[in-house]
Amino acid sequence: MVSRFSYSSVYLRTRPETTQKSINHLTRKPKHPLDPLTLQEVDRVRTILSSYPPFVSAFPPIQSMVLDEPDKNRVSSWKTGDLFLPRKATVVALVSGKSHVVTVDLDLGRVTTHFISTTSGYPAVTVDDLSKALEVALSYPNLKKSAVERGIEVSDLACITLSVGWFGPHEEGKRLTKIVCYSSQNTSNYYMRPIEGLVMTIDLDKGEVVQFVDKGQSIPIASETNTDYRYNKDGQTKKNYPKMKPLNSISMEQPDGPSFSIEGGHMVRWANWQFHLKPDPRAGMVISRAMVQDSESGEFRNVMYKGFASELFVPYMDTDEAWYFRGYMDAGEFGLGATAKSLVALNDCPKYSYYMDGVFVGSDGMPYIEPNIICIFERYAGDISWRHTDFLVPGSEIKESRRKVTLVARMTASVGNYDYIFDWEFQTDGLIRVKVETSGMLMVKGTPYDNVKKIPNEEEMSGPLVSENLIGVVHDHFVTFHLDMDVDGPNNSFAKVSLVKQETDPYDSSPRKSYLKVKRHIAKTENEAKINLKLTEPSELHVVNPSKLSRLGNPTGYKLVPGRTAASLLDKYDPPQLRGAFTNNQVWVTPYNKSEQWAGGFLAYQSKGDDTLAVWSDRNREIEKKDIVLWYTLGFHHIPCQEDFPIMPTVSASFDLKPVNFFELNPILRVPPTFDDDLPNCKPSVSKHLWCV
Amino acid sequence: MVSRFSYSSVYLRTRPETTQKSINHLTRKPKHPLDPLTLQEVDRVRTILSSYPPFVSAFPPIQSMVLDEPDKNRVSSWKTGDLFLPRKATVVALVSGKSHVVTVDLDLGRVTTHFISTTSGYPAVTVDDLSKALEVALSYPNLKKSAVERGIEVSDLACITLSVGWFGPHEEGKRLTKIVCYSSQNTSNYYMRPIEGLVMTIDLDKGEVVQFVDKGQSIPIASETNTDYRYNKDGQTKKNYPKMKPLNSISMEQPDGPSFSIEGGHMVRWANWQFHLKPDPRAGMVISRAMVQDSESGEFRNVMYKGFASELFVPYMDTDEAWYFRGYMDAGEFGLGATAKSLVALNDCPKYSYYMDGVFVGSDGMPYIEPNIICIFERYAGDISWRHTDFLVPGSEIKESRRKVTLVARMTASVGNYDYIFDWEFQTDGLIRVKVETSGMLMVKGTPYDNVKKIPNEEEMSGPLVSENLIGVVHDHFVTFHLDMDVDGPNNSFAKVSLVKQETDPYDSSPRKSYLKVKRHIAKTENEAKINLKLTEPSELHVVNPSKLSRLGNPTGYKLVPGRTAASLLDKYDPPQLRGAFTNNQVWVTPYNKSEQWAGGFLAYQSKGDDTLAVWSDRNREIEKKDIVLWYTLGFHHIPCQEDFPIMPTVSASFDLKPVNFFELNPILRVPPTFDDDLPNCKPSVSKHLWCV
Repeated sequence: MVSRFSYSSVYLRTRPETTQKSINHLTRKPKHPLDPLTLQEVDRVRTILSSYPPFVSAFPPIQSMVLDEPDKNRVSSWKTGDLFLPRKATVVALVSGKSHVVTVDLDLGRVTTHFISTTSGYPAVTVDDLSKALEVALSYPNLKKSAVERGIEVSDLACITLSVGWFGPHEEGKRLTKIVCYSSQNTSNYYMRPIEGLVMTIDLDKGEVVQFVDKGQSIPIASETNTDYRYNKDGQTKKNYPKMKPLNSISMEQPDGPSFSIEGGHMVRWANWQFHLKPDPRAGMVISRAMVQDSESGEFRNVMYKGFASELFVPYMDTDEAWYFRGYMDAGEFGLGATAKSLVALNDCPKYSYYMDGVFVGSDGMPYIEPNIICIFERYAGDISWRHTDFLVPGSEIKESRRKVTLVARMTASVGNYDYIFDWEFQTDGLIRVKVETSGMLMVKGTPYDNVKKIPNEEEMSGPLVSENLIGVVHDHFVTFHLDMDVDGPNNSFAKVSLVKQETDPYDSSPRKSYLKVKRHIAKTENEAKINLKLTEPSELHVVNPSKLSRLGNPTGYKLVPGRTAASLLDKYDPPQLRGAFTNNQVWVTPYNKSEQWAGGFLAYQSKGDDTLAVWSDRNREIEKKDIVLWYTLGFHHIPCQEDFPIMPTVSASFDLKPVNFFELNPILRVPPTFDDDLPNCKPSVSKHLWCV
Repeated sequence: MVSRFSYSSVYLRTRPETTQKSINHLTRKPKHPLDPLTLQEVDRVRTILSSYPPFVSAFPPIQSMVLDEPDKNRVSSWKTGDLFLPRKATVVALVSGKSHVVTVDLDLGRVTTHFISTTSGYPAVTVDDLSKALEVALSYPNLKKSAVERGIEVSDLACITLSVGWFGPHEEGKRLTKIVCYSSQNTSNYYMRPIEGLVMTIDLDKGEVVQFVDKGQSIPIASETNTDYRYNKDGQTKKNYPKMKPLNSISMEQPDGPSFSIEGGHMVRWANWQFHLKPDPRAGMVISRAMVQDSESGEFRNVMYKGFASELFVPYMDTDEAWYFRGYMDAGEFGLGATAKSLVALNDCPKYSYYMDGVFVGSDGMPYIEPNIICIFERYAGDISWRHTDFLVPGSEIKESRRKVTLVARMTASVGNYDYIFDWEFQTDGLIRVKVETSGMLMVKGTPYDNVKKIPNEEEMSGPLVSENLIGVVHDHFVTFHLDMDVDGPNNSFAKVSLVKQETDPYDSSPRKSYLKVKRHIAKTENEAKINLKLTEPSELHVVNPSKLSRLGNPTGYKLVPGRTAASLLDKYDPPQLRGAFTNNQVWVTPYNKSEQWAGGFLAYQSKGDDTLAVWSDRNREIEKKDIVLWYTLGFHHIPCQEDFPIMPTVSASFDLKPVNFFELNPILRVPPTFDDDLPNCKPSVSKHLWCV
């Protein structure tokens, strides 16, 4: 029997093929202290662990194996040509339900530390965990019976393995997964054909069914009509759909190739930027050591030591038995890198993209390569960097304008139904834009209704009807970013620069009644830096270096500029929100602590929320003139609609990190304009379309 | 003496040159009922007015002359080939300080209506108004004396003419302008060299100085160092600045040309969109009759009857004598189209752009052409329309992704120091993104301080120090858009679709404590549709057609999706805020009324705020199942910083109009992916020239 699954199968991949690229991987050595573990290094870690006494008798499942990054101060001072820093790996292995955290020193060739985690929760599930769970499920007689009763071939059952969260004793002392199933009959888009009311709970370690629930067939399985989204498949060509006017060929062309260089596989240099970029099984994509060149002195200056998506919390708004637990922490439970796939050339990324592979580790400790999971490209989107038109005297015009060309690093994670697109975009004016886009499939719920008019009380539904017998359950997405800003070095403070309404003195003669005044407050402690954004209490959020003053005496700084976002509104004591408590504020600032990387806790799967950003930050530590980390949560509320069926057009949101008194003046003041000769001279082969003037 | 000025000189332009393009203008006839007045039509209106009895003895200054658009219902039902609709012009002429509003029927060849406006305020100032004011100012002995005292050659005086707002009796019964001056010695960027404390008030109609204030020389004029932003000028090449790594050639290439067509000069057709686009002296750019093709039926469906920037309110936060009045209404006082200049090819807009000219009217009633003030281009920025990766069985991968190609219409307005970039971007998934970007020069204030450390109390300054002796005064920008949505026709309602936290019943067994529920409220009256955005009270804002239901029974709709924005925080009774009261809410909905186009009032210059959106909407009219207009204000708070000196890198904000249950399903589901062969095959030949086939 061939079973179908999604979350789990993302891990099932072939070992490196013998292409030139994979051969390169076989011989690759790390070039930068932050480079991820190479194939050779993973092999060596496995070898060391195999002979490590506690693991000799039974090699435990490896839940994660990543570089243990050297201490920040050592990395910061390291330069190419320096003695290479010691290479270590952090391994999380599961032994009898305990998470063993083991550090392997690759230079010493041995385990140097080993402890059992004392916080609640488990490491992210692996492909082996999930395939095992699916095997158990699909061989469970009651599931087969439920399928047969509904007229579904067992081979058409598509089941997915969901995280269970933590709600109390039920989730205590055992690793669990919830399995829900779909019919993949006549469609590749099984997500649109849920078998509603059927849910089973499986013990991942014992490999047994803990609970099986089938509420019966009162809710039909939605039709496959219009569900398939693949190009040129039956569903697409069957009918003669109206065609929109086709678009002519358009492409960002770069005859001399792109302007960036990538050294040693991970150091990106472009225009006035340089940074280290790597895939990470949990965070997806990690930007480190981001530095920008000063426009006056020419030196490269520190901006951010490390930036990445620390957690992605997705609570659903349905309390039914098969739904209440759906509140995922996609980074900590499944892994944004582990669920990232090879990008689709030309469609996911433009023509002149550079693609970076991911080297990840299976639960057997063997390395595998997921090719092309990050793309890096230069973008010219027709935008303007700065401009002005001025007329001093008639006939003497000033018309100055500069194009905006940027650099984008992109990864997409397909965490089951949802696809997340992560972009880090670098501008020559010093701005970094971090963008998150969502696409993929809704998590839909079966309903007996095929028309809104038949629904007795639409407000009682957990989401809108998006197709016949399908409701798109309302949910949120919160992406919490870890932004370890080092503005001109680690000695930073966090300033809240507020605009406050002032009334003018009524005895004063001012014709104005009011104005806004800037009030600047340096946060002394973590509590002072917990911020919920309000339009009526606007403030700029600056990370400044109090020891580095500009020519004018302003501290150099970068500001966080939120874009469109959403706040979590769940009850703070709701179990999903306890675990997602890092979304209680949009902004937090913590003192740097190497162990505080994962906003939802190091072990997020089934965690109780005892190791979140909210808990760490409750200590209310001092953050003034310290090495600080800025945390920002970008949020989406999602009320689905018909357009989200059967696959969702991308929705995007972003935030900016923007220089504020970091440069002495506009750093791209002296950039030349673009002239005809600067651009490729492209000639049409056939003049199909003549357009007017 | 050659005097220099900015606001005023934008109007000083040559008459049409005899290029092919201008010859086309000379013979152009309107093709669509919404087409702007042609050169011939303007000439004819002037001729008719010249013999109009009240104007025969003295031809009054024409403050504005634009098409009087035919009634909406007639335009909506008009199709190419139908009998053309009557052409009329609305003319505003100033006679003895009164605003005469005259309608000229071009078919009847006569004036059909004529009334004197009874609201407060005056029409936008003209070039003649401002040149006259500058002449008066520059020949005023005290101004010369002030300049000489400061060692400034009178020929280096650059003075600008500012609007005065309305604060009381001082602004009553006469049209005024405030003049402030700068030194343009050794720089084209005179804005960075203010003569602080010097301000004069001039009566525009009498041509005399009403008030002259010079507070003396306690505040020095800032140096010209680093102020020039022109390419290859002295200031730029004098010093050997560090260079950033130069970028290779990059261009959006379209060997077959762009995919849009422009019929009759104004009807744009692209992919599944069609709309009418025109320049307007006040609004800048107007989109009308936006229709999108249904992906299932193929029919073109109404989305928006008319969309444009109705007002742009910019209050400054300084109560000094030379500053308190600075709170501009750039559309109504100066005109976003009237201050728009020819776009800079390749830098303001990409290579394959189509450029549209503006035909405007001088105060003598003569037409003139401002060439290339709107550009239209197709954009591929490397973005993704939708995607999903799925793995059903090992080895059988689904990787589907679609590129996002969009259409952009752009105009830039240089309203004195500031440049505004307006983009309307159309996506094939039905989304319209409206983006506003700011660039140009700060309005800076002179200060005795050249370093923050010397400032006794930084909080008492009206803005941060951005260069030696210059502070960037804090200010806001509010752009209020008039969005006359006609979703599947004019019978629309406004629905506030809120997410409201629900606590689960504690006696219930639910493991969840809370969830969010969707509550839908149809606004019956204007008051119910006045919305201030709050993250803690999230809602979607839908314009729906209650008479047009989808297959599933959902009303078809479009939603307003705010992006990054800001709210006005001034006292509601502060005079600038009374005039800018349309920013008291971010969202308003009014019943359609042809006369309610300009949020700050038809006559905005020196208006008291008696004709704003806030006043109209106070009637609290019914808006359910009506032809309604949605108003949205996009805002920026601007606390300047060093990077804004001497010219500001663009800052952008946007909002979206997005289909919600408008289409039966994802309208771009069946769009094919992009393959190698779909893209130009460009090869660099000699040097950097690229040949694409």
